[in-house]
Amino acid sequence: MKKRVCTIGGGTGNFVTLRGLKRYDLDISAIVSMADDGGSTGILRDELGVLPTGDVRQCAVALSNSSRLMRNLMNYRFEKGGLSGHSFGNLFLSALEKVTGSFEKAIDELGKILNIHGKVIPVTTAQVRLKMVLNDRTTLEGEKEIYLSQEIDKGYEKIFLEPNSVANPHAINEILNADAIIIGPGGLHTSLIANLLVDGIADAICRSSATKIFIVNLMNRKGQTTEYQVSDYLRDISQYMGKDVFDHILVNNQAPPQELIEVYKKQGGLVKNDVADSRVIEAPLLGEMVEQCNGDLIKRNLIRHDSEKLAAELNKIIAKVDDPCYSSLI
Amino acid sequence: MKKRVCTIGGGTGNFVTLRGLKRYDLDISAIVSMADDGGSTGILRDELGVLPTGDVRQCAVALSNSSRLMRNLMNYRFEKGGLSGHSFGNLFLSALEKVTGSFEKAIDELGKILNIHGKVIPVTTAQVRLKMVLNDRTTLEGEKEIYLSQEIDKGYEKIFLEPNSVANPHAINEILNADAIIIGPGGLHTSLIANLLVDGIADAICRSSATKIFIVNLMNRKGQTTEYQVSDYLRDISQYMGKDVFDHILVNNQAPPQELIEVYKKQGGLVKNDVADSRVIEAPLLGEMVEQCNGDLIKRNLIRHDSEKLAAELNKIIAKVDDPCYSSLI
Repeated sequence: MKKRVCTIGGGTGNFVTLRGLKRYDLDISAIVSMADDGGSTGILRDELGVLPTGDVRQCAVALSNSSRLMRNLMNYRFEKGGLSGHSFGNLFLSALEKVTGSFEKAIDELGKILNIHGKVIPVTTAQVRLKMVLNDRTTLEGEKEIYLSQEIDKGYEKIFLEPNSVANPHAINEILNADAIIIGPGGLHTSLIANLLVDGIADAICRSSATKIFIVNLMNRKGQTTEYQVSDYLRDISQYMGKDVFDHILVNNQAPPQELIEVYKKQGGLVKNDVADSRVIEAPLLGEMVEQCNGDLIKRNLIRHDSEKLAAELNKIIAKVDDPCYSSLI
Repeated sequence: MKKRVCTIGGGTGNFVTLRGLKRYDLDISAIVSMADDGGSTGILRDELGVLPTGDVRQCAVALSNSSRLMRNLMNYRFEKGGLSGHSFGNLFLSALEKVTGSFEKAIDELGKILNIHGKVIPVTTAQVRLKMVLNDRTTLEGEKEIYLSQEIDKGYEKIFLEPNSVANPHAINEILNADAIIIGPGGLHTSLIANLLVDGIADAICRSSATKIFIVNLMNRKGQTTEYQVSDYLRDISQYMGKDVFDHILVNNQAPPQELIEVYKKQGGLVKNDVADSRVIEAPLLGEMVEQCNGDLIKRNLIRHDSEKLAAELNKIIAKVDDPCYSSLI
């Protein structure tokens, strides 16, 4: 029986993990944050009253086994006129939500067209906004404002979803039945905590007998997680989970090029490991700094996880997870 | 071997014909006008520089054997905000044209997703505008202006495409190899003559050994074809074809409800047959005035051809067309 792997996140971090994992013979479900309200997604939410599409689209493309053409189409952004900035995949999901009357049905249809290996599941199907009250009582209204804030690492009073919303039962089901749950990488508040704030999610993770893996971010974000180390991420995540649930903590130990180390120093620093704990697995996880793009070699100017290296490390952990059926027979 | 049927037109008239014909075991190709520049299509042409999508989308949906959901999705129109008025199918074709760099490849992909029975072929792949110079030297710029004009039946100096454009070789090929060519119903200037103005199309129709069928419109358009009868349509079409090529002329002889006759009297009148000619086939071709729409019965307030009746009459004609392979063996 295939191992059931459940990722929890949103955004680009999730994309990299899923793109690597889909090459393995795993039953994958990607639980995705519904707090996105920036860019094309934000405009569609405001104008059409649809649920946020951007993170769902990215996960579906990551899990896709369809032609490059279809994947390129879903990520295509209109460049001019009234459509400027809208990604086609976002319009696709929003139109489907309107036609079917259901965001989950829309995701199913997108999944069929993209021939995805796995499932993409919104963490909630309610219209929610992520909000944060800072120590000076300023309220940051929405994920985009929180993401852009430079004040968060001075401390905040609370972060919450409005309205308070109940988890999607399909998400709870996947979490409870998973063999492995993977959290991160991703924006600490906007992609990770945003999921844990949905009523029922943190509780289900705690109750699930799955092996729990935390993939630590490569770098910090200035004003948000400035100079954070592994223990800081663990502390913050555990606060919203109720306890430290992780069985494995996957940390990159590969140094980026010297010039980028200097750049990142000014932007919150690279994440260093300060946890001496058998749960920590250090491995070289950086992607190539030069990559093929439409036939050209381009030099990246930011670091990110390498899909294949990350998935290989994850798969080593997942392969060791006892098969629950087998255990129950002994 | 399946009979090869080639329709030439654009817009709603073509939709009705194709939706009926797809139920027969025919090899269908729909050659579509590229002059549309109104509504969503016009905005996309102006803002993105893409080819006109509206008529292609309608033909593809008419020929589709996919789920009702996919057909509804392609015809879905966004109702609010910056996307307001855009049909999803138009955005789909335009994004695909941008991603593939080819309008014909975009149509192929749309065809796959809609599982279409047949082919949709743009009459030209050049960016053209339909223009008309009236007798008072006013120039109507574009299909939309021509469609909305109330001055055309006072006569016009010329109608032309700008720039003068060459036919799509795939369209020429379909015309030359067809067993039957069907022209109409549709806007006389904007859907029918617009195709005949593309260099090579009229000549190919004349040279083709196909049986040529003209489906006459049900009603006239005031200011455009006011009080036109069958002979007027034939005369105008033949002018742009070079000669009267038709083997069969299909005319509705079913009267609409009395109240609609009164309405149409004020709007240019119903088209009456004034041609006493063995080529003319009169048949009851009107669609029901009451129809199912999403479970509700709605009363239509305009007449149109009935897809099934029209296709049945066409198929009777097509079935009699000699198989060219068989003929050549005799």
